[in-house]
Amino acid sequence: MFELKKFYAPDFETLGLMTAPDCAFVPAPKDAVAPEGYHAMSIYPEYFKVDGEWKLAEESRMDCVAVLEEGKIVVREFRLLKKGDLVAAGRTETGEDGIFVWPNGFNEEGRLRETFAFRQGRSRETAFSRDYDELYELLRYEREHGYTVWVMGPAFAFDSDARRAFAGLIERGYVNAVLAGNALATHDLEGAYLHTALGQNIYTQENVPNGHYNHLDTINRVKLYGSIPAFLEGEKIDNGIIYNLEKHHVPYVLAGSIRDDGPLPPVYGNVYEAQDAMRREIRKATTVICMATTLHTIATGNMTPSFRVLPDGTVRQVYFYCVDISEFTVNKLTDRGSLSSHGIVTNVQDFIVNLAKNLKD
Amino acid sequence: MFELKKFYAPDFETLGLMTAPDCAFVPAPKDAVAPEGYHAMSIYPEYFKVDGEWKLAEESRMDCVAVLEEGKIVVREFRLLKKGDLVAAGRTETGEDGIFVWPNGFNEEGRLRETFAFRQGRSRETAFSRDYDELYELLRYEREHGYTVWVMGPAFAFDSDARRAFAGLIERGYVNAVLAGNALATHDLEGAYLHTALGQNIYTQENVPNGHYNHLDTINRVKLYGSIPAFLEGEKIDNGIIYNLEKHHVPYVLAGSIRDDGPLPPVYGNVYEAQDAMRREIRKATTVICMATTLHTIATGNMTPSFRVLPDGTVRQVYFYCVDISEFTVNKLTDRGSLSSHGIVTNVQDFIVNLAKNLKD
Amino acid sequence: MFELKKFYAPDFETLGLMTAPDCAFVPAPKDAVAPEGYHAMSIYPEYFKVDGEWKLAEESRMDCVAVLEEGKIVVREFRLLKKGDLVAAGRTETGEDGIFVWPNGFNEEGRLRETFAFRQGRSRETAFSRDYDELYELLRYEREHGYTVWVMGPAFAFDSDARRAFAGLIERGYVNAVLAGNALATHDLEGAYLHTALGQNIYTQENVPNGHYNHLDTINRVKLYGSIPAFLEGEKIDNGIIYNLEKHHVPYVLAGSIRDDGPLPPVYGNVYEAQDAMRREIRKATTVICMATTLHTIATGNMTPSFRVLPDGTVRQVYFYCVDISEFTVNKLTDRGSLSSHGIVTNVQDFIVNLAKNLKD
Amino acid sequence: MFELKKFYAPDFETLGLMTAPDCAFVPAPKDAVAPEGYHAMSIYPEYFKVDGEWKLAEESRMDCVAVLEEGKIVVREFRLLKKGDLVAAGRTETGEDGIFVWPNGFNEEGRLRETFAFRQGRSRETAFSRDYDELYELLRYEREHGYTVWVMGPAFAFDSDARRAFAGLIERGYVNAVLAGNALATHDLEGAYLHTALGQNIYTQENVPNGHYNHLDTINRVKLYGSIPAFLEGEKIDNGIIYNLEKHHVPYVLAGSIRDDGPLPPVYGNVYEAQDAMRREIRKATTVICMATTLHTIATGNMTPSFRVLPDGTVRQVYFYCVDISEFTVNKLTDRGSLSSHGIVTNVQDFIVNLAKNLKD
Repeated sequence: MFELKKFYAPDFETLGLMTAPDCAFVPAPKDAVAPEGYHAMSIYPEYFKVDGEWKLAEESRMDCVAVLEEGKIVVREFRLLKKGDLVAAGRTETGEDGIFVWPNGFNEEGRLRETFAFRQGRSRETAFSRDYDELYELLRYEREHGYTVWVMGPAFAFDSDARRAFAGLIERGYVNAVLAGNALATHDLEGAYLHTALGQNIYTQENVPNGHYNHLDTINRVKLYGSIPAFLEGEKIDNGIIYNLEKHHVPYVLAGSIRDDGPLPPVYGNVYEAQDAMRREIRKATTVICMATTLHTIATGNMTPSFRVLPDGTVRQVYFYCVDISEFTVNKLTDRGSLSSHGIVTNVQDFIVNLAKNLKD
Repeated sequence: MFELKKFYAPDFETLGLMTAPDCAFVPAPKDAVAPEGYHAMSIYPEYFKVDGEWKLAEESRMDCVAVLEEGKIVVREFRLLKKGDLVAAGRTETGEDGIFVWPNGFNEEGRLRETFAFRQGRSRETAFSRDYDELYELLRYEREHGYTVWVMGPAFAFDSDARRAFAGLIERGYVNAVLAGNALATHDLEGAYLHTALGQNIYTQENVPNGHYNHLDTINRVKLYGSIPAFLEGEKIDNGIIYNLEKHHVPYVLAGSIRDDGPLPPVYGNVYEAQDAMRREIRKATTVICMATTLHTIATGNMTPSFRVLPDGTVRQVYFYCVDISEFTVNKLTDRGSLSSHGIVTNVQDFIVNLAKNLKD
Repeated sequence: MFELKKFYAPDFETLGLMTAPDCAFVPAPKDAVAPEGYHAMSIYPEYFKVDGEWKLAEESRMDCVAVLEEGKIVVREFRLLKKGDLVAAGRTETGEDGIFVWPNGFNEEGRLRETFAFRQGRSRETAFSRDYDELYELLRYEREHGYTVWVMGPAFAFDSDARRAFAGLIERGYVNAVLAGNALATHDLEGAYLHTALGQNIYTQENVPNGHYNHLDTINRVKLYGSIPAFLEGEKIDNGIIYNLEKHHVPYVLAGSIRDDGPLPPVYGNVYEAQDAMRREIRKATTVICMATTLHTIATGNMTPSFRVLPDGTVRQVYFYCVDISEFTVNKLTDRGSLSSHGIVTNVQDFIVNLAKNLKD
Repeated sequence: MFELKKFYAPDFETLGLMTAPDCAFVPAPKDAVAPEGYHAMSIYPEYFKVDGEWKLAEESRMDCVAVLEEGKIVVREFRLLKKGDLVAAGRTETGEDGIFVWPNGFNEEGRLRETFAFRQGRSRETAFSRDYDELYELLRYEREHGYTVWVMGPAFAFDSDARRAFAGLIERGYVNAVLAGNALATHDLEGAYLHTALGQNIYTQENVPNGHYNHLDTINRVKLYGSIPAFLEGEKIDNGIIYNLEKHHVPYVLAGSIRDDGPLPPVYGNVYEAQDAMRREIRKATTVICMATTLHTIATGNMTPSFRVLPDGTVRQVYFYCVDISEFTVNKLTDRGSLSSHGIVTNVQDFIVNLAKNLKD
């Protein structure tokens, strides 16, 4: 049975940090500009000393700044800073500036063990059996207690088995949110509407005549209806990823990119608004599974901290998986020095079919 | 010496197409929605019969529609359609619907030869000597007569030789426009301002203390100045890609993505506005060289036709190169059935250093 | 239910080839040297006119020569030629020299259709559902009627699920022969003997102390016993790939390479003797599945024709699969212009686990 | 100017190892079998205590054993052991068993610094400028003082610029030995003899009619002559890699593999004899550059120690480079924990052309 690792909060007394100075908070000189000497956040739990008290920045995000707001530490993107926001300053991590970064809170034995596990390259020759076994248990646990966010490239819509497998995971409650782009939604809806993906029949793999029109026809049709739900209803769609997300009221964020045709109505044209929408989901996430999309995976990795503070105050790990056929992508994403980060090098179609078979109930 | 291929316009008489019907133009039912049966453009020259006359769609773009406007064929993205726009309808390509697609205009011998050259996979084992030789000649030709657009991933900013080589190409007049993202500009400016890229010294490759702050500090500083030119002047920057683009008044488009930190001031947050800005450059392009960025390369490939109509009415080829270390990316991009599309599988640092050495004058 | 494609033998009368000249057979000038103008074989059925009669070269092999021996056409490697062997001469393929190559015998509709299917690149974005479905049916069919040869890289021994899955396929009769190298056998036996692969526990993935000795210890132990069967018995091994091959009397060929440590006793040190042993199995093969080894896959691909003549004289297709995570390898191998050649881009651990789950009976 | 790093021999006194026990040497129980508890070598300098004296194993090789022979430590492959050979026993590395492994002899500052440099993944985004600069200097130094061994895949023969560039390096004295396979030699000679590689003109990249015969014709012709030198003379060959190796009396080892056609006369059919021939060159090597061949690169990496004892007794580093377009291969090879191991991710054609341009004198 799956069990969360216990979090060991830093013992500031033992660490000799009760006498550390308070952290300095300096006003932002302009909108979207941090003051000189600002502190940038990591993926780890970080504590700021405010009025003699060490406060955890609860909803963290790498490469953002810590703002003191109504006695609380809020982690904010540079672009969202307002002139005058009080931004934590200091570039040390061990208390000298009232800032303490705590990467080892989940290490049971040997607090420094992680340093050595740091860069474990994943390759086609890595054995993944055990990762799979852990993942099955984790996802069952998260269904009851957590929030699993799936980040998906378009490959899922091209293969009928993969599409069906993911739809099944939605139905059985394993999916709390999906982050993707215009292409995943377009080709999934094309599959439902015209039984093709990029003009190729998703069941027989045969190219249909004039099939290169199909994704454009699908987008155009959705836009004629005005929305995806209206299209699903009007065309009596009853299968696929988007259909099941809508049916089961699972939120999904479609972020735009310069590659897009269309786009479909709910796609965010402004990528920074898309980041905001993605982070709204990631703030809740306890497990994130990124599959076959370098762009969305890196974007999500940037905004996913290694921990989450639950409503009852418990600090727990956030699990982060990156599944891709490219070792370059997998290693880029999982080289984060975190016990909770896992890379799996495979074809995501096989990955999701495997997963769905092992999460049948 | 480099010479352009002659374009053979279709001879509609010989083709028996003088009696073909006029193309039907149907009003768009809603903003951003095409009428049913709309015709989608390819990368090839396409002719539409209007009032008994075959008209070439001059500035084409794949997966867009043809709109009849003041007697001219305008190729427009779906999202830019206005209700009532007259959109060409018809899904045949050989004249039956008054639409004629002409892929073979640049074929000298054997009009159908191309069918067989269609899918020449490029791999690490392909010999590229001859592609290089042709490219040197082409770029010298384009400097005098054409418009070369470069599409760049961030790798150029990481390597000092590559960065210097590209700066040299700008200085010597080989660069008419650059399409890139926030990362290229950020790390190039980081190199100029702090001598690092992602915190690693670009000359010695050593990691500098707290170097992970450097790209954030660079963006923050630019935003404090309010613009890149103000930053360049204020910090007395005198090297790099962006510096040389500004100095030589070469336009560059920075398209935003959900991966961005910052972003820098001129980055387009809205990706569809970015597409518009990119296409403004691509409309002028006669050669496009995409290097080490799957996202921007595919986006650019989508909007680059295989031909250009010069001011004097001549139709000429547009050369399209995709240079990447991933065969997947190269083959995805160059599998366009076009004589003018070339893939080169290599590290772009070596590519650009080689190129600059062979274009010394 | 799976059904073989019917073979359409060439109708030499309709083809106007009854009056074609006999093929010339020229004596080899030296051992291992073919006469000038020799004909080299392809993967397709080839017919040679001898004494007015068109004879099929029954056991073909690409890049070898056809030798006339006791009225039969024998296909022989250059290195196995003896001085005086009568070698077919002629480099045309359509009968002019009494040699006829017949690539389209299995095409039902449209004899030339294949030309267009010729180069279908396989990538991470190809949908493989249908390939899987066909493969399951094919393997069930072959268990009853054919001979399935598996070509394997060492990755199977690293992952406990993959190792167990393949052992299951052996037990259930899906494996008629295995072609592999020293590494697969070594790490599989290491797993059985010391529960590790390259020193990492195959069940827990933990590195064991001094684990880098384990593969050397395993080889050394086998060599002390003198043979793999003696080792299996002496050490009471009861699991794994090699154990099951021995138990079920499935032949396996281990070909040596310059990368080898050891080697284990049955490994062929001479690679040309290894080729001979491999071809002995391939002569019987009706399906060949190559997984995660570029070296052995290319070697096997070189010696696998696209057809087999069954004892009753029927000509049937030989199915050839290449499963690898590298598109480069997959496309290199499956770009053979054959309807019977399939590439699947994935991690072979997932592939084999999937396969075993779908071939449970 | 290039300068070798100084080697710091271990100070056994300071290390408290003067009182360590002598190493035990145990007779091999059978030919090719080591005694239980044998010690396996690493790539680092290793010392064995014999009769109270610490002796360096001078010509080391990973995964072999240390044999005491006439008072000297000889490092021997298992397969070359003779019954009764006295093999060092003991699996500790810090003296307890009279065996001392010394990985840090070339570290100037901070003997343990290397631990952190240990696993620096190389990718397409690594900046290689500085590696190139060092390599140019190194190769100039080695031409005067060292022995540079080049390990080559067949890609060099496919591209005329690459072929010419490497021929130039031979002429100018930068090449002391070449390790390769049948394919490199075959396609290089095909280029000289028939101006093609695999049937494609190496200058124009055009496929010649019946070009798939060319490599077979080349091999067959060489075999008719009986040797490569006889072929070169008989056919008046005056260009290429093999031609220049022969002309400048540079030794080359061609190791056979199961992929081979032919093979050419000097190819080793027995891979273990090939290993012996390769190691004869590697024993002399001070720099090894492996390019575009996973098989030969791994084989060579296995037999290359990190150091060499010069005739005057000086211990110097051996530099090991792996140049490949696949990050998987590069990281597999350079992940050896050695300061002297470098990976470069690029197309080897560009690599060698670059190199030759910078080593013009």
